[in-house]
Amino acid sequence: MSGNLQIVLASRPKGRVIEENFRLVEAPVSRPGDGQLLVRNHWLSLDPYMRGRMDEAKSYARSLDLGEVMVGSTAGEVLESRHPGFEKGDWVAGNFGALGWQLYGVSDGRGLAKIDTAIAPAQRYLGVLGMPGVTAWIGLLDIAKPKPGETVVVSAAAGAVGSVVGQIAKIRGCRVVGIAGGKAKCDHVVSALGFDACVDYKAGRLDQDLQAAAPKGVDVLFENVGGEVLDAVLRRMNAFSRIALCGLISQYNATEPYGYRGLRALLVNRIRLQGFIVADHMELWPQAVRELTGWLQAGRIKYCETVAEGLENAPKAFIGMLRGENLGKQLVKLA
Amino acid sequence: MSGNLQIVLASRPKGRVIEENFRLVEAPVSRPGDGQLLVRNHWLSLDPYMRGRMDEAKSYARSLDLGEVMVGSTAGEVLESRHPGFEKGDWVAGNFGALGWQLYGVSDGRGLAKIDTAIAPAQRYLGVLGMPGVTAWIGLLDIAKPKPGETVVVSAAAGAVGSVVGQIAKIRGCRVVGIAGGKAKCDHVVSALGFDACVDYKAGRLDQDLQAAAPKGVDVLFENVGGEVLDAVLRRMNAFSRIALCGLISQYNATEPYGYRGLRALLVNRIRLQGFIVADHMELWPQAVRELTGWLQAGRIKYCETVAEGLENAPKAFIGMLRGENLGKQLVKLA
Repeated sequence: MSGNLQIVLASRPKGRVIEENFRLVEAPVSRPGDGQLLVRNHWLSLDPYMRGRMDEAKSYARSLDLGEVMVGSTAGEVLESRHPGFEKGDWVAGNFGALGWQLYGVSDGRGLAKIDTAIAPAQRYLGVLGMPGVTAWIGLLDIAKPKPGETVVVSAAAGAVGSVVGQIAKIRGCRVVGIAGGKAKCDHVVSALGFDACVDYKAGRLDQDLQAAAPKGVDVLFENVGGEVLDAVLRRMNAFSRIALCGLISQYNATEPYGYRGLRALLVNRIRLQGFIVADHMELWPQAVRELTGWLQAGRIKYCETVAEGLENAPKAFIGMLRGENLGKQLVKLA
Repeated sequence: MSGNLQIVLASRPKGRVIEENFRLVEAPVSRPGDGQLLVRNHWLSLDPYMRGRMDEAKSYARSLDLGEVMVGSTAGEVLESRHPGFEKGDWVAGNFGALGWQLYGVSDGRGLAKIDTAIAPAQRYLGVLGMPGVTAWIGLLDIAKPKPGETVVVSAAAGAVGSVVGQIAKIRGCRVVGIAGGKAKCDHVVSALGFDACVDYKAGRLDQDLQAAAPKGVDVLFENVGGEVLDAVLRRMNAFSRIALCGLISQYNATEPYGYRGLRALLVNRIRLQGFIVADHMELWPQAVRELTGWLQAGRIKYCETVAEGLENAPKAFIGMLRGENLGKQLVKLA
């Protein structure tokens, strides 16, 4: 066993994240104490929420300290266990950043779950069968509750969460409209994922394209992006429509918050908007994973992964993901 | 019986409403046909929602046509009935503008309800026992659902809706903070209505004063105003808090919509925001009026009325209400 490599928070971003905000450090591999286990991380998941943890501002989770290992979900193999719930050779996923951006991690088991790599390869438990997939399931089915025939709009439609949201909505009999940046992503969303339409927000015709794609208006918005894309969809929302507010990625690097002009629609159309994070709904996780696994095995949900190689490339991949350069789930292969 | 007087929409406002947007006209008193009744309006209710009906823009109700009698709720006496549900001498309230800004109105009974003037004088059925009171009850108890001990903030706290919201929240064991414009209104809200505190948004210390008045943060916001007041409260909302979005009166005369900068709070604090209008919840009306009547008779809910005299003064009173010059329910005495 060679030494551990970690990526720590070197400095807080001022607006956009830059590579200098991270530092790669060597460290000894810790030994598990009583009730602990040692995991070799094979995959690291990069997710937009990590951006918030780099700031000092209050969010739903505490800020990272300077010098602290970056938070991040991982999948890997148990090398040694002194914990009654895990054995050497088990595969585990740590879906809420239990282990973080490093090659080896010691855990007391909190936040770790055993995964079955016979059903799907380990990295899938960081995507469609992990936090992003469960976030999609909960936000759409438990919060927005679309009815068959309704029009569902999903922003960041080519991303890890949005791609699953749209496919579940199709399974539930909805008209599904994605919003994504660029023609390639939009083609992918329609051709590979089966959305009914996809609006390219970079094409400069957001209002007209939304109207064409959602001629009967919007009944459900699953929002991952915010900013002017959200304002544009607000103008197309129907009476009694619902917004599941999952993310605001367009704002995470902003130094000045965007000013939303469309709030009157919330009143006029009696819209219900619910901000949510998946960690508040853990009681639904097993049901969500069961359904997602069934759909995945039946070929009814497709996935796409963008993989960076090596821990040292995680910062660059993370910065690219915040810019929308990934298609589907952004992973880092560590092993 | 002398002739009818009506106030009609003469022109659409460009931003602020002006008296020239209205025209007083004489008209013959219509005779009720089969299935109709003739009412002498004694009281006219002035409500913020009427502002939206003067514009051409889409809202939850259709726009008024130019020359059409202004929409407005009224209370009055049946002079003649050819409708099986009403008799001469009955008192009725038309709570959704069934009769409008005029001295006499003919109706097929839709939107009219008989009222008991032995329980409370007729004009009370346009305020605490009418649409504003029921709006307060539904928005607070059915939508925001405060728990005892939680902090409830109400904007336009001295108005017809806000004053009832805060008093119901006190009955339910909440800490209640009003927001109103000017010291006189704030004193009224605390001394006469029994709120725990009231923040004067005109005093220029909105953030500090909110923090002092709601030191544990805000669990429920009943929003009637919008604009920077809403943005300021968003900064103080707690995790899992709720917003009942009832009105945005600060914006009704605006030619440029306000840009809300605080939306990230909805995500970070997993806030539920629900826009609503009382007309969507008519099934709750009887229960709401029953409870409000009980509280009123027990002296647990106090009310305040600002009364203009004569139909010809309704435009001036309406313009004043949009500026916040009224205390409590704004009425026009017609008889």
